[in-house]
Amino acid sequence: MRLFYHKDINPDQNEVTLTSEDSKHIVRVLRMQNSEQLHLMDGRGNRYTCTIIDAHQKKCKVKVDGVETLPPTASHIHIGIAPTKNMDRIEFFLEKAIEIGVGKITFFYSKHSERKQLKLDRLERIAVSAMKQSRKFWTPELTIASSFKETLAIEADQKFIAYVPTDATENLFQKIEKDQNILVLVGPEGGFSEEEAELAKENSFEWVSLGKERLRTETAGIVTAQILNMVDLK
Amino acid sequence: MRLFYHKDINPDQNEVTLTSEDSKHIVRVLRMQNSEQLHLMDGRGNRYTCTIIDAHQKKCKVKVDGVETLPPTASHIHIGIAPTKNMDRIEFFLEKAIEIGVGKITFFYSKHSERKQLKLDRLERIAVSAMKQSRKFWTPELTIASSFKETLAIEADQKFIAYVPTDATENLFQKIEKDQNILVLVGPEGGFSEEEAELAKENSFEWVSLGKERLRTETAGIVTAQILNMVDLK
Repeated sequence: MRLFYHKDINPDQNEVTLTSEDSKHIVRVLRMQNSEQLHLMDGRGNRYTCTIIDAHQKKCKVKVDGVETLPPTASHIHIGIAPTKNMDRIEFFLEKAIEIGVGKITFFYSKHSERKQLKLDRLERIAVSAMKQSRKFWTPELTIASSFKETLAIEADQKFIAYVPTDATENLFQKIEKDQNILVLVGPEGGFSEEEAELAKENSFEWVSLGKERLRTETAGIVTAQILNMVDLK
Repeated sequence: MRLFYHKDINPDQNEVTLTSEDSKHIVRVLRMQNSEQLHLMDGRGNRYTCTIIDAHQKKCKVKVDGVETLPPTASHIHIGIAPTKNMDRIEFFLEKAIEIGVGKITFFYSKHSERKQLKLDRLERIAVSAMKQSRKFWTPELTIASSFKETLAIEADQKFIAYVPTDATENLFQKIEKDQNILVLVGPEGGFSEEEAELAKENSFEWVSLGKERLRTETAGIVTAQILNMVDLK
């Protein structure tokens, strides 16, 4: 069934008037009519089964037939990542991390960051699109940290920074434990500075490797999401 | 140092004349001059340290100062994947799989494939670009299989197909063993047909899961590469 995102609804509502954008898409593009069914999601785990009762092309109205609340996935996983210079790549990371499973993403600027600004609303739109495609019902919490220090102050049971000073640095997978809130920081194209890595260590972050290969920032982010999602396979 | 790909060289050569494309890039764009150094790679593990001896903008000539042969990475990993409808997505898989590490990739068409043709030369260009970016010196072997049956006949020590009929299907990570040549097949958008999954089983492929989440084809391919590269962490 077709799935639409509408963040301003709640499970008590009997009727919903859709946004003009969705109304147009449903009525003019998909040519859906009264009495046809669709799903709505609110990004807070609820899936609404609805029937169109007024196929208006600007304010399509639906009746809510039922609401199902789906359990959160990967809510214990928090990835902090420095945005890449090329926006496409950070957007691709976001899409893939949501597919694989992530609870929170914090974007932070680090010494070697080549990009120093991000638009949260654009990232949120991409997140919603990825959620719809991969049928995820919980929006990951997206934040832009004001500083690297603020990022280091984030709370978690286990905190890691992808920083590999020597071949002996252990892999993230070897360090993670089940049923813990885990935060991993992934650096920009040029990597973290030594100073940043030391500062992280002073703030209870452990240095970890993501594997033997040299990875781009967005790939490191995707790999981190996958490693964290494998914790139950240890 | 700048790195260029030139597949038609061998470690015995003392001098190399670069392609017109690379010559133009080196001389006109990068404005490199005689006596400046660069690296060449041949995709077969060799890195050539060279010095420009004729900065000609169509046929730049370099002298080979030394050759180093790098060990192959992930040569035991073979991923078979059905191309996605959208070419960008299969290209992204290719780039990421090369970064993470893969020895061979076979593209095959399956019953639910929405794309029925691929251009190998375009895929090879993307592979080379990914290799340069991630400083990989071995070109993965890229093949387009003529049929699904041909794909099933590929030899490997362990063979898997990402097909999840029940929640009890074990994760790929639980099944893989160290020091084995491993082949994993990843299906198209619509998944493998039951018939294909059965046929694979008859041909010694085990059914495995890649995780709890619903993944797009290209994400499943990337996740497969990552899981296989973690075999030493078991």
